[in-house]
Amino acid sequence: MNSAIIVAAGRGQRMGMKTDKAFLSLGPKPVVAWSLLAFEECPEIDRIVLVVRRDQLTAARTVAQMFGISKLSAVAVGGASRQDSVLNGMAELDPDTRYVCVHDGARPCVNPELIQATLRCARRNGSGIAASRVWDTVKFVERGTVVDHTVDRTKLWTVQTPQTFSLPLLSRAYQEVKNKKASVTDDAAAVELLGESVRLVEWSKPNIKITTADDLPLAAAALQIT
Amino acid sequence: MNSAIIVAAGRGQRMGMKTDKAFLSLGPKPVVAWSLLAFEECPEIDRIVLVVRRDQLTAARTVAQMFGISKLSAVAVGGASRQDSVLNGMAELDPDTRYVCVHDGARPCVNPELIQATLRCARRNGSGIAASRVWDTVKFVERGTVVDHTVDRTKLWTVQTPQTFSLPLLSRAYQEVKNKKASVTDDAAAVELLGESVRLVEWSKPNIKITTADDLPLAAAALQIT
Repeated sequence: MNSAIIVAAGRGQRMGMKTDKAFLSLGPKPVVAWSLLAFEECPEIDRIVLVVRRDQLTAARTVAQMFGISKLSAVAVGGASRQDSVLNGMAELDPDTRYVCVHDGARPCVNPELIQATLRCARRNGSGIAASRVWDTVKFVERGTVVDHTVDRTKLWTVQTPQTFSLPLLSRAYQEVKNKKASVTDDAAAVELLGESVRLVEWSKPNIKITTADDLPLAAAALQIT
Repeated sequence: MNSAIIVAAGRGQRMGMKTDKAFLSLGPKPVVAWSLLAFEECPEIDRIVLVVRRDQLTAARTVAQMFGISKLSAVAVGGASRQDSVLNGMAELDPDTRYVCVHDGARPCVNPELIQATLRCARRNGSGIAASRVWDTVKFVERGTVVDHTVDRTKLWTVQTPQTFSLPLLSRAYQEVKNKKASVTDDAAAVELLGESVRLVEWSKPNIKITTADDLPLAAAALQIT
């Protein structure tokens, strides 16, 4: 069995808005519904756990019902940080889960093809992380806005989600995060803490994260809703 | 006097198309026309040098005429690499130029506000580079697709264009590039070769570079042409 954890518990502090970014409208659906539907439509995904803030529990269940998300098995309450939210989602996984796809609910451009690609990679290598090469020139800035040096961008990738892992690996990884009281910005970093190898899956199509209101029209264009 | 060099000599090899990306249609105008108009409309810019491939010279002049680019002072032929194209553009600058904004013609979302911000910074510090913080998690990958480690993204910025410099500084920088037979991916890197400080100007609005056909609808959304 393969499960998804969709994390939609971010406050969107950078949005400068009160509304949770996952529940903003993106064309005809809330942002998070796009992700829910992608996992619903992916035949290799059996269950979906959705993680939201406590005051969005009702909204989350309503959205799932409105868009016919039959695979939704639980709605969990998010924690103070992203990693706490993922842990809360993992606590709700079906014990038969072998592979788990962790996905940010604020990335609405995910589709079944990308989910499958990360699953396929995880089955072969233990992990499969949506990632893209960096094309812009990258500067290292120690502090302020004065460039320290140009970084060799050919060795840099940005990672997005889904990030898919065998469940035992991800469980061990987050146990390690707890033990070390570490702070990680993505799930792969938790696995890296273990010293286990993390494998990237190149994805060159837009996989925009909604972080400011300016991102909504870009995501709409990428989803061809205009 | 302040001059702009708009470099539109890229072949768009990643586009998988024969058409130069700068001459593709983006809503009602070719990609490069959006940049030309932004510099035309910026009161602090006096002259524009446009750099294109030899077989686009006529197309370039036609576009400039069609969109009323009165500041166009020269159309230069691009070189084998971006840095050669910038040098060819610099050779056409009015000798009274004090500050020069180098801009990629494949970045159509530039606007007068951003141009002015880089000019203001360059007047104060010698350089002003459009840049944005990195929000995605960044992985260092030595080779293949296995992660080596997670990079501290809080110290990384991606840089775009315009990149604005005092002309003597940029001239010395490109002289150094020539002397060292160096290869640079942006103009700031040429200045870094001199050991001179490079100053970033934070810009958080979309400043998309058209590198694949998928980028055209994103740029259209950012420009609100839909």
